[in-house]
Amino acid sequence: MTTFTEKLREAQGRNRSWLCIGLDPVMERLPKTVLASDNPLLAFGRAIVEATADLVCAYKPNLGFWLAEGPVGLRALQDLIASIPNHVPVILDGKFGDVGHTAAAYARAAFETLGVDAVTANPYLGLDALRPFLAEEEHAVFLLARTSNPSAPDLQDRPVGSHPLYEEVARLAVGWDAAQPGICGLVVGATYPEELARLRELAPDLPFLIPGVGAQGGSLEAAVAHGPTAGGLGPLINSSRGILYASQGADFAEAARAAALILRDQINTERQ
Amino acid sequence: MTTFTEKLREAQGRNRSWLCIGLDPVMERLPKTVLASDNPLLAFGRAIVEATADLVCAYKPNLGFWLAEGPVGLRALQDLIASIPNHVPVILDGKFGDVGHTAAAYARAAFETLGVDAVTANPYLGLDALRPFLAEEEHAVFLLARTSNPSAPDLQDRPVGSHPLYEEVARLAVGWDAAQPGICGLVVGATYPEELARLRELAPDLPFLIPGVGAQGGSLEAAVAHGPTAGGLGPLINSSRGILYASQGADFAEAARAAALILRDQINTERQ
Repeated sequence: MTTFTEKLREAQGRNRSWLCIGLDPVMERLPKTVLASDNPLLAFGRAIVEATADLVCAYKPNLGFWLAEGPVGLRALQDLIASIPNHVPVILDGKFGDVGHTAAAYARAAFETLGVDAVTANPYLGLDALRPFLAEEEHAVFLLARTSNPSAPDLQDRPVGSHPLYEEVARLAVGWDAAQPGICGLVVGATYPEELARLRELAPDLPFLIPGVGAQGGSLEAAVAHGPTAGGLGPLINSSRGILYASQGADFAEAARAAALILRDQINTERQ
Repeated sequence: MTTFTEKLREAQGRNRSWLCIGLDPVMERLPKTVLASDNPLLAFGRAIVEATADLVCAYKPNLGFWLAEGPVGLRALQDLIASIPNHVPVILDGKFGDVGHTAAAYARAAFETLGVDAVTANPYLGLDALRPFLAEEEHAVFLLARTSNPSAPDLQDRPVGSHPLYEEVARLAVGWDAAQPGICGLVVGATYPEELARLRELAPDLPFLIPGVGAQGGSLEAAVAHGPTAGGLGPLINSSRGILYASQGADFAEAARAAALILRDQINTERQ
């Protein structure tokens, strides 16, 4: 059995890449050539994956964009995931957080019905909401610590004793991961470079999923500097819109490949 | 335009009910007679709704149980929601919490694609993750304050200054609701009666969605005592498994109706 961490490490090595592409289709932004097909969401997703699968360490579809299109969208997501080469990990960005028996239903949706390798989850409900996702070592959970959005401080910066809440989440995650190393990672927005540095100090061994580079204006430098674990496992540096919509013309897939190549290489240059 | 609060108040009056039924189907627990049909999830859901629509103030499908069955499950949920009488509010329990443009995709999934009246949401990402759900006064968001699960204290009880985090969430919700009254409610587990009382003190005007009665062993007494708003709007007291699976035989719908009637009347007796 390959663990999630092993699969990620292999993908990072094979493609010399810490780039993760967010598969977040929005109907209004799809190229006309794609909209003319029978199944635009699937056609778009497949074209992006075919154009970039040798440049990424992972794909991260966000469930919300597929659900917005209803059952047809969910079917397209399922078919797209099935078409992603098996050696590229897929993280379902669902930010799940529900009570135990419901969390088990979400785990089934993610790992069995959709067939992904890992998910994102929200820490607000505590450990029993995460357990169903942590049952198999081939899977992993990336727990929201510091999100990339402007309102992140509303709750995440509230002081819990001497430190902000997001640090408390990291401490809890380190504890939960200790029982089964490699099963738990953190989501840390590149838009908050100081918090990223602090979280790496607190959680030296947890893989980081880092959104917020690109359209959201986060720091690539901070993502590269503080992204890797003490053991050298690289972060998943996510970009979505900047790659998916690099062109909205008929050349969208080539443009996505070009944008992905530039970002992957920027990351690799920064690593040196 | 009828606001969510008005619709809820009317439903509570018409059916003399504070009972909300959670529509959470699990394939392994469905009656054999239902499993023999072409579309077991829809057949089950419709039979439950037909048997109980005059006894409830709302229905609350939890997205996880439908997603576990993939596109077929999502289609069944969509068809079920379309078949619920228009005067009964439907709350999609999705515990959504994502950055702004993704939250907008979830809002579209909930309000347009599935056609519900309200959703549940997680406060961890702050206000900008909620805004897309708060755009129309016919809709509402029930924000997780104190959840019903055993691990709820992991984060929710952490002291923020002089009070626990879940109180901080209530304070934020009161502020967010002030701009557009009636748009924001709280989810408060009946399994934590003291916290329920405290939250009602802090948020006298916010509608409460109260899970945890029934299978989870929460306090009906506390739910009734602290459930109503200062303005007399009753809580949504949710029960799922105790009603859905009252019988797993061919008489499941009658048994669900009997269980719903008992719980509704217990609530009404407690109100007197």
